[in-house]
Amino acid sequence: MKIIRRIAILLVMFLSASDYAVLYGQVVRPRLLLSAADVRLMRESLGRYAWFDKAYGEAKEAVDRACASPIDVPKPVDAGGYAHERHKQNYREMQSAGILYQVTKDERYARFIRDMLLQYADLYPTLGKHPMAASDEYGRLFWQTLNETVWMVHAAQAYDCIYDWLTIADRGTIESKLLRPMARFLTIEHAATVDRIHNHGTWMVAAVGMLGYALNDTNLVDIALYGTKKDKKAGFLRQMELLFSPDGYYAEGAYYVRYAIQPFIILAQAIENNQPELKVFEFRNQILKKAIVAELQLTDANGRFIPINDALKEMSVLSQETILALDVAFLRYGDRGGWLAMAQKQGKVSLDASGLAVARALQNQGTPTTFASRSVEYIDGPLGDEGGIGILRSGPPDDQSMLVMKYGAQGFGHGHFDKLGFLYYDRGREIVQDYGAVRFVNVEPKFGGRYLPETESWSKQTIAHNTVTVDGTSHYGGVYRVAQEHHADRHFFSAANPAIQVMSGKIDGAYRGVSMQRTMAMICDSALPKPVILDLFRIDSKQKHQYDLPLYYMGQFIHTNVAYRAFDSARTRLGLSNGYQHLWKEAEGRAAGSVAFTWLQGDRYYSMISAADTSTFVMFTRIGAGDPNFNLRSEPGIVLRRNAASTVFATVLEPHGYFEPVNEISLKATGRVKEINVLVSTAEATVVEINGTGSLHWLFAVVNGEASTEASHSITVGGKTISWKGNYSLWKH
Amino acid sequence: MKIIRRIAILLVMFLSASDYAVLYGQVVRPRLLLSAADVRLMRESLGRYAWFDKAYGEAKEAVDRACASPIDVPKPVDAGGYAHERHKQNYREMQSAGILYQVTKDERYARFIRDMLLQYADLYPTLGKHPMAASDEYGRLFWQTLNETVWMVHAAQAYDCIYDWLTIADRGTIESKLLRPMARFLTIEHAATVDRIHNHGTWMVAAVGMLGYALNDTNLVDIALYGTKKDKKAGFLRQMELLFSPDGYYAEGAYYVRYAIQPFIILAQAIENNQPELKVFEFRNQILKKAIVAELQLTDANGRFIPINDALKEMSVLSQETILALDVAFLRYGDRGGWLAMAQKQGKVSLDASGLAVARALQNQGTPTTFASRSVEYIDGPLGDEGGIGILRSGPPDDQSMLVMKYGAQGFGHGHFDKLGFLYYDRGREIVQDYGAVRFVNVEPKFGGRYLPETESWSKQTIAHNTVTVDGTSHYGGVYRVAQEHHADRHFFSAANPAIQVMSGKIDGAYRGVSMQRTMAMICDSALPKPVILDLFRIDSKQKHQYDLPLYYMGQFIHTNVAYRAFDSARTRLGLSNGYQHLWKEAEGRAAGSVAFTWLQGDRYYSMISAADTSTFVMFTRIGAGDPNFNLRSEPGIVLRRNAASTVFATVLEPHGYFEPVNEISLKATGRVKEINVLVSTAEATVVEINGTGSLHWLFAVVNGEASTEASHSITVGGKTISWKGNYSLWKH
Repeated sequence: MKIIRRIAILLVMFLSASDYAVLYGQVVRPRLLLSAADVRLMRESLGRYAWFDKAYGEAKEAVDRACASPIDVPKPVDAGGYAHERHKQNYREMQSAGILYQVTKDERYARFIRDMLLQYADLYPTLGKHPMAASDEYGRLFWQTLNETVWMVHAAQAYDCIYDWLTIADRGTIESKLLRPMARFLTIEHAATVDRIHNHGTWMVAAVGMLGYALNDTNLVDIALYGTKKDKKAGFLRQMELLFSPDGYYAEGAYYVRYAIQPFIILAQAIENNQPELKVFEFRNQILKKAIVAELQLTDANGRFIPINDALKEMSVLSQETILALDVAFLRYGDRGGWLAMAQKQGKVSLDASGLAVARALQNQGTPTTFASRSVEYIDGPLGDEGGIGILRSGPPDDQSMLVMKYGAQGFGHGHFDKLGFLYYDRGREIVQDYGAVRFVNVEPKFGGRYLPETESWSKQTIAHNTVTVDGTSHYGGVYRVAQEHHADRHFFSAANPAIQVMSGKIDGAYRGVSMQRTMAMICDSALPKPVILDLFRIDSKQKHQYDLPLYYMGQFIHTNVAYRAFDSARTRLGLSNGYQHLWKEAEGRAAGSVAFTWLQGDRYYSMISAADTSTFVMFTRIGAGDPNFNLRSEPGIVLRRNAASTVFATVLEPHGYFEPVNEISLKATGRVKEINVLVSTAEATVVEINGTGSLHWLFAVVNGEASTEASHSITVGGKTISWKGNYSLWKH
Repeated sequence: MKIIRRIAILLVMFLSASDYAVLYGQVVRPRLLLSAADVRLMRESLGRYAWFDKAYGEAKEAVDRACASPIDVPKPVDAGGYAHERHKQNYREMQSAGILYQVTKDERYARFIRDMLLQYADLYPTLGKHPMAASDEYGRLFWQTLNETVWMVHAAQAYDCIYDWLTIADRGTIESKLLRPMARFLTIEHAATVDRIHNHGTWMVAAVGMLGYALNDTNLVDIALYGTKKDKKAGFLRQMELLFSPDGYYAEGAYYVRYAIQPFIILAQAIENNQPELKVFEFRNQILKKAIVAELQLTDANGRFIPINDALKEMSVLSQETILALDVAFLRYGDRGGWLAMAQKQGKVSLDASGLAVARALQNQGTPTTFASRSVEYIDGPLGDEGGIGILRSGPPDDQSMLVMKYGAQGFGHGHFDKLGFLYYDRGREIVQDYGAVRFVNVEPKFGGRYLPETESWSKQTIAHNTVTVDGTSHYGGVYRVAQEHHADRHFFSAANPAIQVMSGKIDGAYRGVSMQRTMAMICDSALPKPVILDLFRIDSKQKHQYDLPLYYMGQFIHTNVAYRAFDSARTRLGLSNGYQHLWKEAEGRAAGSVAFTWLQGDRYYSMISAADTSTFVMFTRIGAGDPNFNLRSEPGIVLRRNAASTVFATVLEPHGYFEPVNEISLKATGRVKEINVLVSTAEATVVEINGTGSLHWLFAVVNGEASTEASHSITVGGKTISWKGNYSLWKH
């Protein structure tokens, strides 16, 4: 007995509280993003890794400041003003305070969380639907459920961190007046959102799941994992199956994945800490890893997300969400190619075991391998059969051409009617832009920081994109419900040869009786300083239609060969609906041969040369009409209009020359390419010729029929037969 | 005799060619920018000073490339295309080759210059007036004399550098077919320009003077120094008297001094090397030093010149001209406060003795003292009695507010009709802009890179500036001849108290019967994160007029309290002439109390709050109407219009809040100042009150009568008498 007592004493001396908990079958906390082991490791690591110390120091400074200030839990009133921002600040501070409490065991932090949660527990039962609620997805603390779930994801972590410290009475108050009612609000009042396959749904299941673990409530956890009916037709795992394509492309696109990845990552961490047997990071061939790789690839040379769909252009890999995602990915998968370098670029790590892992690696390794952005295609749809998005790149990161073409699915409610649209960047600068969304996020005087009406009326519409609008209406009649059921198709994507990279996509159903195919090539030539873009937009129809192809160039109009009439004393709009009402018509004219237009962006000139004859009408436009609230950016465009049945818009984009205003240097303000002609376009193939100064004579052929790298083709052009093998061919004479 | 022979032999062994030249009364070369002693020093310094080695290496690389390429001296055909640029390249390469020849004695460089000069000697006699000549100031090699003189300034240096190496026959050819005819062309055909007090005149006398020294022709040198009549009523020294104010402000303004300083500096160097007895660097109390200090002060936080008059906004202290000017100033005057730091920022030194001096100092000293941009007033006019320009600054260089007000003379033909106009910067960003000139310098498709017609029709006009236009016409009827004979006046400038800095200017003659006074203050308050600007524009007239006061804000329209009607389906212009034809009217409305308008620029909000009642009409405008060639930038403005006899436009500009789109943070999108009211405005003083949230109640008084820091004032406001001493007073309640 004495020996046994001694052993017991030894146990008391060497076991931690959590070890006891394990011994006695209790819940070991913290258990959500942090495990007890993580906390020990973090504590021991302080002062050893500069990057981690920085994260710790910043959190400590912010939370210490918060602890020294009065707690404010204001009545919810706005959708983007003080109360809205304060509740966001509160959940961030609580979450950080929880981590700090665990690491330091300083009770100031625990008291801060307790006091705040008790104030929320006082407030919450008094709340009904938020006064600014604008849809079924209303919240109580916030105007929309989305923010409410984000609040919960953070608050659940804070609660978990101080759970063991709280009195039973306080736990009772917090759970009965706040957490349980919120759980009911979320899982019952918003059951539809729990089961929704959508980023709001992901945040919802993350909130419910985190709360489930925090409350040690298996029912909530199961709802989060498998849907309200627990039949696995919804819930977290199903979302991982349906929201990503097999290669990790997120259905809503590049900007949204940044936001959507966070609840995936957070809940996955909590699951891994509590139900490792689910092997969530291995799920679907490591779909989370693929998603993060895709997220990082879908950025411009400055790390900003390619702004397709309802995107805000400034958003980048520097965002908190991406920092956390990358750190967790590093922890779970190791460095899968330049991830450490990307973390270094982010300049911060997250304050948890994953951030610690990155900090340690950054400290112990030399200069990490650069993240290699490359030419890549992502297929779209859960099964990968709903078209895709292609990115062609050429040149080193600091002097890179990037071309993006979209030929995938709609991407839910934030998707745009922009099939076969493209974006073109040079050195991280937008040269041909996608407008993105019309929104000033969190800017209170701008509709509470929400999406502005012009997102629907302008930026989602087809005419707002660099693709063809038929008869002045958007794809699928601009009806989301229809568009969401259809998708474009990939034709081929070929990036193996750096001298010529080509991608091609097709869409048949966007307009009745009109088939479209767009082929875009990035061509390097030793005689040209930068790659040129070749763009063949083939339209096939039995009926005559009006085809409008805009180019939203960024920069200063320098020159055009189109004899135009300028509307410079009075100005009207291009149309009355479908986005046309937002375009001023600045000038119009008729082509006389290939249209040439040159603009200046930064220190480089760009020219567009497009096959045309007098049947092509050219309009110079400016965004900003129909905008009584000054929500739009005043930016230019050029629109090619043609009334035809079948036709091909064949265009070259050529970067050239140099402008340096400090030393007053302007070189080669005129490009080399002078004309492009469509020689033939049949069901089998399209052939164009490109002519320019200095003996530039190119012939390019692309297959319109079934794609195959092996098939041979021959076609007669002007009495002469040309032959090639594969999907395309380029001849330089 | 033997001893004498031995001495002679010793002399032969130890004396250089130039020493002999001195012994025999010959001209010692080089003698223009470089002296023989400079050359020796440069040669000995190679490999010792990194900055100098860089300048040498770059020049060598460029000239070696030029020497290995065919010489091209094309027929002059254009005003900004290949031939134009090639002739510029040629003179730059010749000048550099001359320096390299002197330093290395490598005859390749000498041959390069000789061959090129001989080609010019072949070409020049065949030339008449340049085919693109557009005025009396035509050239032969170039479309305007100005470029021709710049060519000569460089070519004369090259010729001087290889003079001793050339055969007498080649000298004969070059002088008789090229240099002498050019000298005649410049001094006889363009005698008026030689005598012109203007930057073209400065380049002209520099060209003539440099050529004079190169040809050892005292007549030419005297013409350069004293004018064609040699009566000292024109020429270099007279220009130094008339083109700068006593404190160094250059008549054409901040952008032009950069260009104009170069011939001053170059010819001064040549004079110092040849006629040191003229003490040119001491002339007029070291006016060249003052000019350089003023040039450096007249920049924004990014080193770009304040773009008043016909300025191009990108131009900065990084320009070659400023590098040379600063290096020479350092050589001649030593470091007069942050000059070395500025040279370091320039990143380059010039390839001569002055660049060497800077390179040596940069190498031998630690981190140099930062250049201190500060609040400063420059008086205008040769005697300093033609008004001036005031700059108020607050905050450290990386977070600096800068306010510029112009109350000086017209500044010759590139001057704008912008009396009492202002510019406002925050952290080097334009917040309230001056348009600058309409020009794409050297961009051939844009009118050969020359000033575009919209410079006259738009950017010179009063309405294009942040000042009052009366009855829709520009100051002085927009007539240069009249404007050049008048000037505004300084009222007072007070920057001693960092908490409140105030400047005030007046103009009486810009409109018949209308007196104007503008007082602008930069006020720091511990309760406000950034200084606010107070702007009181007082107009006194017996007759009723239409007063338009625009604010060309830079950024995104966020909110206004004006109930306006938006012209968003059809748009017309503000007027038909005097610049109004270039403004689209986007919206208009009538004030109902103080006008409030908020915009977002970068990560900060700015609000304008202006005293008004229903007699104030507000228009939102956009630049770009009447611009068939797409030469203008599409940028917004807000115009306050009031029909009145005497009135005061009283405005506060308040920076506030924070916007950070990556972390989606928006704070304080609404400012604190809510209203400003004019309480009284008499011949003696104007008093305004400013009210805002958080108990912000200010009273500000400014003296309208004679300025004096000592005089006491008292004025009755709403039955209460307030008293103060000096030109202004601020009361905070």
